[in-house]
Amino acid sequence: MLNKDPARVRNITCIGAGPIGGGWAAHFLAQGYQVTSYLHDASEYDALMRLLETAWASLEQIGLADNASLDNFQYTSDLAEATENAEFIQESVPEVLKLKQDLYKTLGDIVDANVVIASSTSGLSMTDIQANCATPERTVVAHPFNPPYLLPLVEMIGGENTSAECIAWTERFYKVSGKSPLVMKKEIPGFIATRLQEAIWREALHMVANGEATVEQIDQAVVNGPGPRWALMGPCEIFHIGGGEGGMAYCLDQFGPALKLPWTRLVAPELTAELRQAMIDGCAEMTEGQDFASLSRKMNDGLVKIAKIKQNQHGQ
Amino acid sequence: MLNKDPARVRNITCIGAGPIGGGWAAHFLAQGYQVTSYLHDASEYDALMRLLETAWASLEQIGLADNASLDNFQYTSDLAEATENAEFIQESVPEVLKLKQDLYKTLGDIVDANVVIASSTSGLSMTDIQANCATPERTVVAHPFNPPYLLPLVEMIGGENTSAECIAWTERFYKVSGKSPLVMKKEIPGFIATRLQEAIWREALHMVANGEATVEQIDQAVVNGPGPRWALMGPCEIFHIGGGEGGMAYCLDQFGPALKLPWTRLVAPELTAELRQAMIDGCAEMTEGQDFASLSRKMNDGLVKIAKIKQNQHGQ
Repeated sequence: MLNKDPARVRNITCIGAGPIGGGWAAHFLAQGYQVTSYLHDASEYDALMRLLETAWASLEQIGLADNASLDNFQYTSDLAEATENAEFIQESVPEVLKLKQDLYKTLGDIVDANVVIASSTSGLSMTDIQANCATPERTVVAHPFNPPYLLPLVEMIGGENTSAECIAWTERFYKVSGKSPLVMKKEIPGFIATRLQEAIWREALHMVANGEATVEQIDQAVVNGPGPRWALMGPCEIFHIGGGEGGMAYCLDQFGPALKLPWTRLVAPELTAELRQAMIDGCAEMTEGQDFASLSRKMNDGLVKIAKIKQNQHGQ
Repeated sequence: MLNKDPARVRNITCIGAGPIGGGWAAHFLAQGYQVTSYLHDASEYDALMRLLETAWASLEQIGLADNASLDNFQYTSDLAEATENAEFIQESVPEVLKLKQDLYKTLGDIVDANVVIASSTSGLSMTDIQANCATPERTVVAHPFNPPYLLPLVEMIGGENTSAECIAWTERFYKVSGKSPLVMKKEIPGFIATRLQEAIWREALHMVANGEATVEQIDQAVVNGPGPRWALMGPCEIFHIGGGEGGMAYCLDQFGPALKLPWTRLVAPELTAELRQAMIDGCAEMTEGQDFASLSRKMNDGLVKIAKIKQNQHGQ
């Protein structure tokens, strides 16, 4: 049995004090939790405090939980002390498998087996990380996006020995603590968001390598083109709206042939009847039957607000 | 010699009345121009007026030019009449090569040779479009992003017979008329923004086809993860900031090896010393020497504002 109801967690331990570990600490503090950070080395303290102060300035603007305070923050370089009262542990140490394996072995021994340990790893598998842990069933990958206190995404996947209960508990915990968890259907390298981001990044590198565009042109193309839409809606909903009244079905039938064109160096999948239907059904479910007019009004309203943010930036 | 100073253009003709042609009309009207739309068929009028009214509601919020008014709008289904007083022509007819070739042949004969004709085409080459035009030197591709009245990007490229003067004039014209033109270094299929967008789209389709993620998971991953950043900054500047004080150089040295990993189905280019340097130099120029602290403050301030936009959307 795991720890109490995820909604009743009060004490969180963040292991690691870099940009990710510190960012998690800032997020949980803003949500009103008691947070203890484990610093591998006491010399990390100054950088961590600067990060917390920078984050706090942003978090105050977005809105803090009633009982949120930087006074709820503690730190130590003693791992046993750091985890003593933990009801949830977020681990963000460097991406070195041996380091994580040793840490999970120790944590497996010293932390109550009913406490979930979530890893921020972006590239390692939990099956590998939990290999030497005596209590692997409560360990899970929970990969945030940087900065974790401003971007809500957490991509989750268990390892071979992670329990279904652990995944369900942790998903619920993130929801009540202000994050947007996504439980992956399969373990795929790079999860969802990093894969999509990496696809753009690789195509961009190809363009620079071939003298087809400059670094600045690439960035301007994104910021003045598809970027503002992506802040509001994902690529599927955008094309669903792009299809007008006909939605995703129209869009696929109209632009399906373009998948054969060399519009990127990434070869597209075959647009089978099954894939076509999966895209259409997915859009219908996701938009809960909202019609084109209301979806496109929502998009435009958001784009107007983003345009105004940019006007103000330029005006500064 | 082309038409007068781009800054003195007052009369614009938009050929085509679909979402793109109508969107261009809305943009130019909001900037205070006299706009004449050519409708292939008078029955397109109702949809066009609905589009203009929808667009106007957004444009009023962003801010109209002093002399902007929907009263400055005219339409006709007579091509000669539509182009009679044109000082600039934006063509947005369907993406059918024969159709565009015939149109440019006619326009080449009836429109003064000192008037630029720009095509919104997303997939055809100007070399092909201008093939039968007697005055091809003033024709150029100028591909907008939808909706053209909210997203400023225009990707430009000439055909074989386009003059350098035409490209320079048109780039300047778009700048004074409130757009963000990018003159491509080479003609590549899909230009810059569509290629980057298509890279994401193809990777997303692969994931759905393989049961690795649902449509909704893909969209949530973007909107809750990298999306808000892309509204503010392109992928290069984001990684430049991601590298901390070390900037792009640190980022490439740290994450370069990940280019070998299957983090997307797109194979990355070799990270040569030349490519590494081009990325680093490009970021330094683009950010005009702003340091990490000020770049990351700009990013955070923008993300706070986008977070607030989303809070309000959910609160509706």
